[in-house]
Amino acid sequence: MLIVQKYGGTSVGNPDRIKNVAARVAKYRAKGDQVVVVVSAMSGVTDNLIKMAKEIMPLPNEREMDVLLATGEQTTIALTAIALHSLDIPAVSLTGAQAGIVTDGVHTKARIQNITPKKIHELLKQGNVVIVAGFQGQTAEGQVTTLGRGGSDLTAIALAAALKADLCQIYTDVDGVYTADPRIVPNAKKLDEISYDEMLELASLGAKVMQSRSVEFAKKFGVIFEVRSSLNDNPGTIVKEEAKNMEDIVVRGVSLDKNQAKVTLVAVPDKPGIAARIFKAIGEANVNVDMIVQNISHGSGKPATDLSFTVDKPDLLKAQKVIDSLKAEIGFGQAIATDKIGKLSIVGVGMKSHTGIAARMFETLASEGINIDMISTSEIKISVVVDLAKGEQAMKAVHAAFLG
Amino acid sequence: MLIVQKYGGTSVGNPDRIKNVAARVAKYRAKGDQVVVVVSAMSGVTDNLIKMAKEIMPLPNEREMDVLLATGEQTTIALTAIALHSLDIPAVSLTGAQAGIVTDGVHTKARIQNITPKKIHELLKQGNVVIVAGFQGQTAEGQVTTLGRGGSDLTAIALAAALKADLCQIYTDVDGVYTADPRIVPNAKKLDEISYDEMLELASLGAKVMQSRSVEFAKKFGVIFEVRSSLNDNPGTIVKEEAKNMEDIVVRGVSLDKNQAKVTLVAVPDKPGIAARIFKAIGEANVNVDMIVQNISHGSGKPATDLSFTVDKPDLLKAQKVIDSLKAEIGFGQAIATDKIGKLSIVGVGMKSHTGIAARMFETLASEGINIDMISTSEIKISVVVDLAKGEQAMKAVHAAFLG
Repeated sequence: MLIVQKYGGTSVGNPDRIKNVAARVAKYRAKGDQVVVVVSAMSGVTDNLIKMAKEIMPLPNEREMDVLLATGEQTTIALTAIALHSLDIPAVSLTGAQAGIVTDGVHTKARIQNITPKKIHELLKQGNVVIVAGFQGQTAEGQVTTLGRGGSDLTAIALAAALKADLCQIYTDVDGVYTADPRIVPNAKKLDEISYDEMLELASLGAKVMQSRSVEFAKKFGVIFEVRSSLNDNPGTIVKEEAKNMEDIVVRGVSLDKNQAKVTLVAVPDKPGIAARIFKAIGEANVNVDMIVQNISHGSGKPATDLSFTVDKPDLLKAQKVIDSLKAEIGFGQAIATDKIGKLSIVGVGMKSHTGIAARMFETLASEGINIDMISTSEIKISVVVDLAKGEQAMKAVHAAFLG
Repeated sequence: MLIVQKYGGTSVGNPDRIKNVAARVAKYRAKGDQVVVVVSAMSGVTDNLIKMAKEIMPLPNEREMDVLLATGEQTTIALTAIALHSLDIPAVSLTGAQAGIVTDGVHTKARIQNITPKKIHELLKQGNVVIVAGFQGQTAEGQVTTLGRGGSDLTAIALAAALKADLCQIYTDVDGVYTADPRIVPNAKKLDEISYDEMLELASLGAKVMQSRSVEFAKKFGVIFEVRSSLNDNPGTIVKEEAKNMEDIVVRGVSLDKNQAKVTLVAVPDKPGIAARIFKAIGEANVNVDMIVQNISHGSGKPATDLSFTVDKPDLLKAQKVIDSLKAEIGFGQAIATDKIGKLSIVGVGMKSHTGIAARMFETLASEGINIDMISTSEIKISVVVDLAKGEQAMKAVHAAFLG
């Protein structure tokens, strides 16, 4: 079997853990499997690099951030190869560029354009374990790029597709996909299987297990993958096209996204085209907007609305810059930004055929004395924004109400 | 003017120091100079990477060590570019590979084969400061390589030659080349000028300012360079073809090399070809041997000698491995290795025309109660190996005797 295994930052967090990864790879190899290992940066490394860059300049150039951050995974591939050598297993490390991962040129959020796995096939054929740096690639012109958050998962799934791997395993620090993050909700339950679509909802709602992009990619290319723990041998959660009996379950999972920030524009002139103008400019700055809520402004005078939206926390400064540059043109009252929010969501395809779910969620939060800042709903999910400090309390209460 | 500036690990040791580097580059740019900046890894980073690798395996694979260590300089180039951006100076970072530095494939000690500075010229022409990662290159086949100790100096001098730069400045944490390391001998004096050959002797004897390879390269290509401090604006030491009045000075400088280790083979059979066999094998393992001393063995029985040699400390394990593999074939008594040695040297072209210098050095050490383990002399230098713990005491005493 050809297996692609991906190990996240915690699984390779120090030399001892890297040795554990090597020992696990060795077990598969002993069974005769060919193994391609995708690794992230050691936990804390990427954050530390970002911290240093921001100490120098709050909004560092993205090309240079890619050059900077790509070092994290490059460190891990070398150490992982050395750990395999220490077990007498031939292993060769490859950077994203060396592995043939070609991306577009959108720095810090590059998209994989194609993978030429010739070098990987060669090295596998020679009997090597191949260690590939996750999260990174290279443009056709030789610029270093990174794939953004969750990029290492994407690398693994894209490689599994390109290599036509028999199995793709995403190793992390939890046993699989849970009804809620077990680090916050101790009695959350592990799911044996989940469909791409459900996984996508949970991912897009900030469940920490995986980013949407990777799941979307897996769905598109039909890559079945398993999310499992690098700390034990428990089976994980299989993510694939269809899971059984799903409609019986009203709420499949609860997630809390602490990585969002909120911008509120107060007293935006209520004229056609204003919102389009704002979100076009933000989009052009490559900032993803998640929730958008608009309401009548309480101010007096001309017709005006209050407009709130959320963005990924790391993009907040960039979003503020865009908003500042539009102030004269649009003439809103003021812009209020905060990154002290949490987005709590419940998801489940069963919601379609059940009523009163939203009311029950809001009641649960009210009974905990938790105020709701923003609400957004879709067919199979309900999301609310609450004060970050109350996010975990809210999550526990909602989990207890629906899944406890 | 086109200036190549190289900043070592201490000069880029943290974000604030990197900002200082950017401020200095800005000054030259304000004068209308084009600047190419070569940077090392931030101080401590390379050592930490080596430590992690050795935690995993005592003798890690050298290809993987290059992949690992190259991350250190890659981190610094990105941060330095960002620091220049924060001063509104356009700057682009290049890895060794991106800068067109092509090396042979001897990992961890690669030699530069050629430099194609097309990309650098392009970026300079567009008005950028170009930041190049020191210490690293790429083989023609795309393997990451590093140039070994002092590799960043070599990168700077080789780039200065390839770019036909007007000036090459090597910034370090001392004001220039001293009669001895001022961190050990406080009253050491700074030299205004020094010839390549004298600098070479000092470098090869372990004076920490620069490695021999870089000076040899500069001599070969006639690159005049200045060694100066990144902490102030004092003029440094100019290194060039000829310095005046040199023969009047008996001892030009004193150096202490703490980076050597000693291997003694006890009771080596006294037969022709044995030494050749030993040092051929060590050479084939790419280990440089520095001093070699052979003496009659005190053991009884067959004719035998004791053979001692020194190698760079990081190569000690490799040298021991080679020696172990030869034990059966050669049949020596035992191999004793220690890395607790210091090599103290005095150098000066004036020695040629003065007598009694060696005796005076040995007397000085004797009067300090310092035992001499090995002695080796040449026309313009005298080196002794002493106990590492007494190295600095020995250096101070010898400096006081000749240069005090």
